[in-house]
Amino acid sequence: MRKIHVIGIGAGDPDQLTLQAVKALRSTDVFFILDKGEVKSDLVQLRRDILDAHIPEGGYRLVEARDPDRDRTAGGSAYSPAVGDWRSARAAIYERLIAEELGEDESGAFLVWGDPALYDSTLGILEEILDRGAVAFSYDVVPGVSSVSALVARHRTGLNRVARPVQITTGRRLAEGFPDGVDDVVVMLDAHQTFRRYADEDIDIYWGAYIGTPDEILVSGPLAEVAPLIEELRAEARERKGWVMDTYLLRRNPGS
Amino acid sequence: MRKIHVIGIGAGDPDQLTLQAVKALRSTDVFFILDKGEVKSDLVQLRRDILDAHIPEGGYRLVEARDPDRDRTAGGSAYSPAVGDWRSARAAIYERLIAEELGEDESGAFLVWGDPALYDSTLGILEEILDRGAVAFSYDVVPGVSSVSALVARHRTGLNRVARPVQITTGRRLAEGFPDGVDDVVVMLDAHQTFRRYADEDIDIYWGAYIGTPDEILVSGPLAEVAPLIEELRAEARERKGWVMDTYLLRRNPGS
Repeated sequence: MRKIHVIGIGAGDPDQLTLQAVKALRSTDVFFILDKGEVKSDLVQLRRDILDAHIPEGGYRLVEARDPDRDRTAGGSAYSPAVGDWRSARAAIYERLIAEELGEDESGAFLVWGDPALYDSTLGILEEILDRGAVAFSYDVVPGVSSVSALVARHRTGLNRVARPVQITTGRRLAEGFPDGVDDVVVMLDAHQTFRRYADEDIDIYWGAYIGTPDEILVSGPLAEVAPLIEELRAEARERKGWVMDTYLLRRNPGS
Repeated sequence: MRKIHVIGIGAGDPDQLTLQAVKALRSTDVFFILDKGEVKSDLVQLRRDILDAHIPEGGYRLVEARDPDRDRTAGGSAYSPAVGDWRSARAAIYERLIAEELGEDESGAFLVWGDPALYDSTLGILEEILDRGAVAFSYDVVPGVSSVSALVARHRTGLNRVARPVQITTGRRLAEGFPDGVDDVVVMLDAHQTFRRYADEDIDIYWGAYIGTPDEILVSGPLAEVAPLIEELRAEARERKGWVMDTYLLRRNPGS
């Protein structure tokens, strides 16, 4: 039976791969890489660099496909259906790749930035393909260092404070309000710098972009003080590189 | 100046170390290991096994000390002060170890299970020592695969559902009520199987103990159905091994 590895490859630093991930890479016959188009081609190249570093003798196949376009303009309650449509379109592509490009006794792999457990669609897509029943395979998941762990490691702080909870959420959710019951909030997938809405509260931010790569930018401090600097650095980097991936932790001070 | 690495070593599987962690191990002169007493000696041995695997030529020193006893009986609002006292006692031990066992131009390391960012006191203790000012050092943090990532990878599920938040909290917090505003909750440090309180709700549980080790136990399913099995397996394993480390994800079904 066909076998698929879903491999977390860390947040950007090639040394953030685990030994388990390296072993999985080396046992893979075919790597599937979906390209989101030119602006993300740096990320495709980073994946190739990882393969070259860890499988120097070659001997694997690389299959590239074009990611379906995602309707990112859909807002509010339309968000989940838009994601669902996009996921189904992606599932159709993955299904074809697995059926056509992977021999019956071969292993394929999807390389996922960070940890496949956080805001990544690969596992959901594989389950959708299995549900359709047109192609059979087994799969396993190799956990990775998430961009969340990488962010706070670079800032040398923890995610939670002593005996307290931490929430991981999206920019879209944060726009609806600061989450209830927590003072430590990690925000991912925020294209709109939603932290700016909270600049009048007693909150510290730990922000990072391109974490673990040579382009890494880190800023931390009281939100009111550093928010303009983050905006400026983010816009400048986005202009220069054509894309930006950033994550941040908001830490609200007790009693505020 | 003295240099300290705080190294996340993954959730128990030695292959969950990152390449960055291996490099940090190999650049370390002195490893500090605090033993919590006999029941946790398996965990000390696992750390030694990791060192032997990755530094086969030896050439490092291992310094062991006894962890201060922690008052785990303090409940409710007394919890944080008890943790504070324990942390200060631990800081005094770490300070002495760094000052006495580490030469001025040497590197020391603390090996942390999972990711140093989640419910681990090492970073807070190092900051406390630096604040005291009796011994100077620089330090860095090597992020690791958290037990949370390892748990859901083994269950082949994600932490969050599409576009939704996830909260990471403690058993003690969960005992106060299911967190507001989230349906996906990861629970750590739960000695009392607090999930049992929610067995009459429409919640799935993804539970794991000794994740990534040969003793790994995984159970998932509707909470009402599998809670008794988890209780039984956990009690049996704890009896046999003398200690248990477990983590779980509670996933509440929408509309319940």
